[in-house]
Amino acid sequence: MTSTLVLLRHGESEWNAKNLFTGWVDVNLTEKGRAEAVRGGELMREAGVLPDVVHTSLQRRAINTAGLALDAADRHWIPVRRSWRLNERHYGALQGKDKKQTLAEFGEEQFMLWRRSFDVPPPPLDDDAEYSQVGLPQYADLGEEMPRTECLKDVIGRFLPYWESAIVPDLRAGNVVLVAAHGNSLRALVKHLDQISDEDIAGLNIPTGMPMVYELDEDMRPTAPGRYLDPEAAAAAAAAVANQGR
Amino acid sequence: MTSTLVLLRHGESEWNAKNLFTGWVDVNLTEKGRAEAVRGGELMREAGVLPDVVHTSLQRRAINTAGLALDAADRHWIPVRRSWRLNERHYGALQGKDKKQTLAEFGEEQFMLWRRSFDVPPPPLDDDAEYSQVGLPQYADLGEEMPRTECLKDVIGRFLPYWESAIVPDLRAGNVVLVAAHGNSLRALVKHLDQISDEDIAGLNIPTGMPMVYELDEDMRPTAPGRYLDPEAAAAAAAAVANQGR
Repeated sequence: MTSTLVLLRHGESEWNAKNLFTGWVDVNLTEKGRAEAVRGGELMREAGVLPDVVHTSLQRRAINTAGLALDAADRHWIPVRRSWRLNERHYGALQGKDKKQTLAEFGEEQFMLWRRSFDVPPPPLDDDAEYSQVGLPQYADLGEEMPRTECLKDVIGRFLPYWESAIVPDLRAGNVVLVAAHGNSLRALVKHLDQISDEDIAGLNIPTGMPMVYELDEDMRPTAPGRYLDPEAAAAAAAAVANQGR
Repeated sequence: MTSTLVLLRHGESEWNAKNLFTGWVDVNLTEKGRAEAVRGGELMREAGVLPDVVHTSLQRRAINTAGLALDAADRHWIPVRRSWRLNERHYGALQGKDKKQTLAEFGEEQFMLWRRSFDVPPPPLDDDAEYSQVGLPQYADLGEEMPRTECLKDVIGRFLPYWESAIVPDLRAGNVVLVAAHGNSLRALVKHLDQISDEDIAGLNIPTGMPMVYELDEDMRPTAPGRYLDPEAAAAAAAAVANQGR
């Protein structure tokens, strides 16, 4: 028996549209992003991929994407679970900065190191900086775990415990599970599922609003590569993500 | 120590706007209804009434109202619980019928009996009728409890077990609890809280999109009447509900 896992990156956010590093800054969807989320839900409904439970981050762009997609799929009524462990990568001192300007200021090498290296985080964000999330009530329980910056390795480190303790049990119980999250928290998951090397993960980009479906065996390993419900649109969108900052 | 309970009836729905009996038919919010939900959330934020957990029905007009209001209140990230026991009253064979036409066809006395009597349900809805919910996946687990029509007494009968087993424990744990639901499931709760008689409850109308706040003592009894965060708007809106069908 296989389990079905659906990954959905939030639709375009206000800061995707402005080409700013976002991370834990809690920006909302654009009108385009809302339409992408609805389209993602329609794709699920048309494909008969119907989630029984949804896991989201604590960030409104993922929460609202899940809400819009599930409404469009007639699955608005399913149970909801949320965790900060599904949040986007904390972008440290880059949060709020323009991607193009950062590229010009620091150069291609440093820019790509921060964006895509596995284990080099950007400089940490000061707790009293404008775009710090320290002190927000949704993160009050994190204590020592509250990040000030993260690399992808850090994201994997805080994501995988939630995968094992919360998502896998839902899959084993026979549920179709939707994970509505972010570019880098989903890259962390795909790296784990597809056993992608620390080097090769740099080349993986996940487009916004495109449901990707995995069938997992009893060991929670994919029986085949993840498939997008709309493969052509996904390929075009992934190429656009790769070119951000250019 | 008191507990804080916030009641929120969904914003205007497509069938509120068309003046049709809705019940368990899963219509969505209108643009006006979405704006009401956002306004409700802004009122909560401005008043510092910040939910720690939300309970909704399984119906999209309440689910989406909760989502919009919580986003506007910066509380989109709180835990979500859902139950069919918070659904609107099942309106039986009246579901999908025009309120004004029903008033003309059956006369004032029968119309008000169906709308506001405590224990007289409308005729049951056939399982194969257009607006039946029998067979929908969200109600697959109900079995014998799946209603085909309900009076307010029936709503109280299925709502109170959830109140006791799911909402009261959240209140006792010290949470500010938001209940996002429907005209009649909230009338059932207000009747219980304020110990309103079977006769007097007929005169109580709850407006859409207006947060009402109760402080409850340790016996889960209100320390004062429920207060709307925007009392003037609530009074005007409640009068409009009372006049539906005229």
